[in-house]
Amino acid sequence: MKPLKKRLLTPGPTMVPERVLEALSRPTLYHRSPEFKEIFLDTRERLRRLFKTEGEVLILTSSGTGAMEAAVANLFKPGDSAVVVAGGKFGQRWEELCRAFGVKPITVEVEWGKSVSVEEIGKILTTTPDVKGVLVQICETSTGTIHDVKAIGKITKELPDCLLIADGITAYGVYDIPTDDWHIDVAITGSQKALMTPPGLAVISLNEKAVNRLNDNPTAYYFNLKKELKQQPKGQTAYTTATNLVIALNEALKMIEEEGLENVAKRHEMLAKATRAGVKALGLELLSENPANGVTAVISPEGINGQDVVKIARETFGITIAGGQEHLKGKIFRLSHMGYVDIFDILTGLEVTEFALKKLGYNRFNFGDSVKAAMEVYEKETL
Amino acid sequence: MKPLKKRLLTPGPTMVPERVLEALSRPTLYHRSPEFKEIFLDTRERLRRLFKTEGEVLILTSSGTGAMEAAVANLFKPGDSAVVVAGGKFGQRWEELCRAFGVKPITVEVEWGKSVSVEEIGKILTTTPDVKGVLVQICETSTGTIHDVKAIGKITKELPDCLLIADGITAYGVYDIPTDDWHIDVAITGSQKALMTPPGLAVISLNEKAVNRLNDNPTAYYFNLKKELKQQPKGQTAYTTATNLVIALNEALKMIEEEGLENVAKRHEMLAKATRAGVKALGLELLSENPANGVTAVISPEGINGQDVVKIARETFGITIAGGQEHLKGKIFRLSHMGYVDIFDILTGLEVTEFALKKLGYNRFNFGDSVKAAMEVYEKETL
Repeated sequence: MKPLKKRLLTPGPTMVPERVLEALSRPTLYHRSPEFKEIFLDTRERLRRLFKTEGEVLILTSSGTGAMEAAVANLFKPGDSAVVVAGGKFGQRWEELCRAFGVKPITVEVEWGKSVSVEEIGKILTTTPDVKGVLVQICETSTGTIHDVKAIGKITKELPDCLLIADGITAYGVYDIPTDDWHIDVAITGSQKALMTPPGLAVISLNEKAVNRLNDNPTAYYFNLKKELKQQPKGQTAYTTATNLVIALNEALKMIEEEGLENVAKRHEMLAKATRAGVKALGLELLSENPANGVTAVISPEGINGQDVVKIARETFGITIAGGQEHLKGKIFRLSHMGYVDIFDILTGLEVTEFALKKLGYNRFNFGDSVKAAMEVYEKETL
Repeated sequence: MKPLKKRLLTPGPTMVPERVLEALSRPTLYHRSPEFKEIFLDTRERLRRLFKTEGEVLILTSSGTGAMEAAVANLFKPGDSAVVVAGGKFGQRWEELCRAFGVKPITVEVEWGKSVSVEEIGKILTTTPDVKGVLVQICETSTGTIHDVKAIGKITKELPDCLLIADGITAYGVYDIPTDDWHIDVAITGSQKALMTPPGLAVISLNEKAVNRLNDNPTAYYFNLKKELKQQPKGQTAYTTATNLVIALNEALKMIEEEGLENVAKRHEMLAKATRAGVKALGLELLSENPANGVTAVISPEGINGQDVVKIARETFGITIAGGQEHLKGKIFRLSHMGYVDIFDILTGLEVTEFALKKLGYNRFNFGDSVKAAMEVYEKETL
């Protein structure tokens, strides 16, 4: 039987609410029109409230990686050194970006699935002169692991020349993150994760410490944050912005405010707990020692290739979940609970996991076991 | 926690596929334009294939009840008598329509949840002179029960003056019904059930026997089937048709043909079996002795009002299921598996039933019990 429906349970792009799709399909506006400017400015304000920052928030027409590049290109000079937390694919990306822009990475290797030792970062920062920044993920999406960025901020805030640059691509809108209070100098997110909007927009926040560091790197032509900083407070962008996506993002941010960021964060926490309980009820283990609330990485049982779980879910059941990346490919699969997701979506994700595992010969559970465990968590947490 | 999402699991309107919503939102066409005529004619042909009839198929801009009225108003004269099968709310509707148009109903009362005795109908038809028709439901939606219309057709086909008029509103697109082979002279359906289109269109088929009986009832002004019969083969309608809905229905019919009517019917059968197994695993009983594949009517456990199950599902979980009607109000609740529905929707319906029943104090099950039973059926039937 060919799947009738398609469901997206990946850690981005995530499911887009009907309201946001409707906003996306409104007539395209001219990006220099007063009507659009108003929406653009309103979107920036909403992002400021989401980030809880008094600093600047810029919208870029790119994926999240574009904003990561913008951070490295605009805030470091060739020859600068930066501490990079490499505990997964996205930590590695910071390292690659440093190399691409002549920045010397001081890499803190972290076993994939573990959180970085803040102590180790502190040690490097006190013993190494002239470190210009710390590049880290709030949530390392490839392993579903949280790093303690708040604790890192307590160190970097005392270092006037060291910026804390946090990739919060799968963290903003999952957690209630007080960017300023945590002393995150530069924070990044993307539209296609907990912000419930299709891919194509990135967001980068800069506090005063960061703004003062912006350089004039000529190769940062498209991702020129100084130019954007001149334009965006006027409701303009340096280059053409993805107008319909901005309007869609505006609608998504309205939804987050209507639900309340605190409630949004609570919902994600509950969904993550339910997912973890469900997975454990199947006799499976989590990859992460410090699992994130946006995505759960599950270690594939012995003898079963995680990619096969993903393949069966998609081809037989029309449900897209994510596999592992790099050396974790085949070793894990990932269930997302980020954005426009409720308990029934979680249960669907667990059910398709059960169907696929049974089909692959893993029999250490009965149908419904993960559902039972997740429903019990839901009942306890909310009813 | 306010529900994040809304899900429609009622026996109409049912969930509308994205493709159909997209078609619905295309620019409105002039109903007399060549472009629209082509779509209209194509839709009629697709409906003919769905009904498996060589007869006429007319599209009416109304709910299914409009087509029921059209049948009574155009095919009977005041003073005529007709056998009416009254085994639920929609059987009663035939009776009300007969009275409204001066037709004498010979009502066969059937306990709600039971199927009509074909023998009894046969007896009436052989002992009562001049019965002009039999009015019946293929599926009585209010009780989720099937009547054996095929068997009735074997009787009525021998009676040149007696039409078999079947309300197939929750049967076409759930089952593969060979209208001509079953000798159904007039069959009716609506857009908002298994045809996966929003409410607003009804369909009525007429074979030669029925066409020859069309009268000139002046009060059937809007529902004038003779007028429609002159217009519709030319791609016209007597009055303005719901153009966007026709285009949406066209898309839905394409989806049914792509899946294959036989597969569509098999899917509904599998989903119905899974639902019934799930419900029974909770210690609950079905209302129907002959349950339909489009909707499952569940007897609410003692001490629990079915309306409360419906209320909690909607208000706490954002899921709309249906209650009972008339004297069954409070006594039952109904889970639909009609149209754009897959196994995960069924499991969601069972989960919300579990959550609601637990909340109402019914504890004769563990969370996940119904899911387990339904997943087992699914595995057995399809994997």
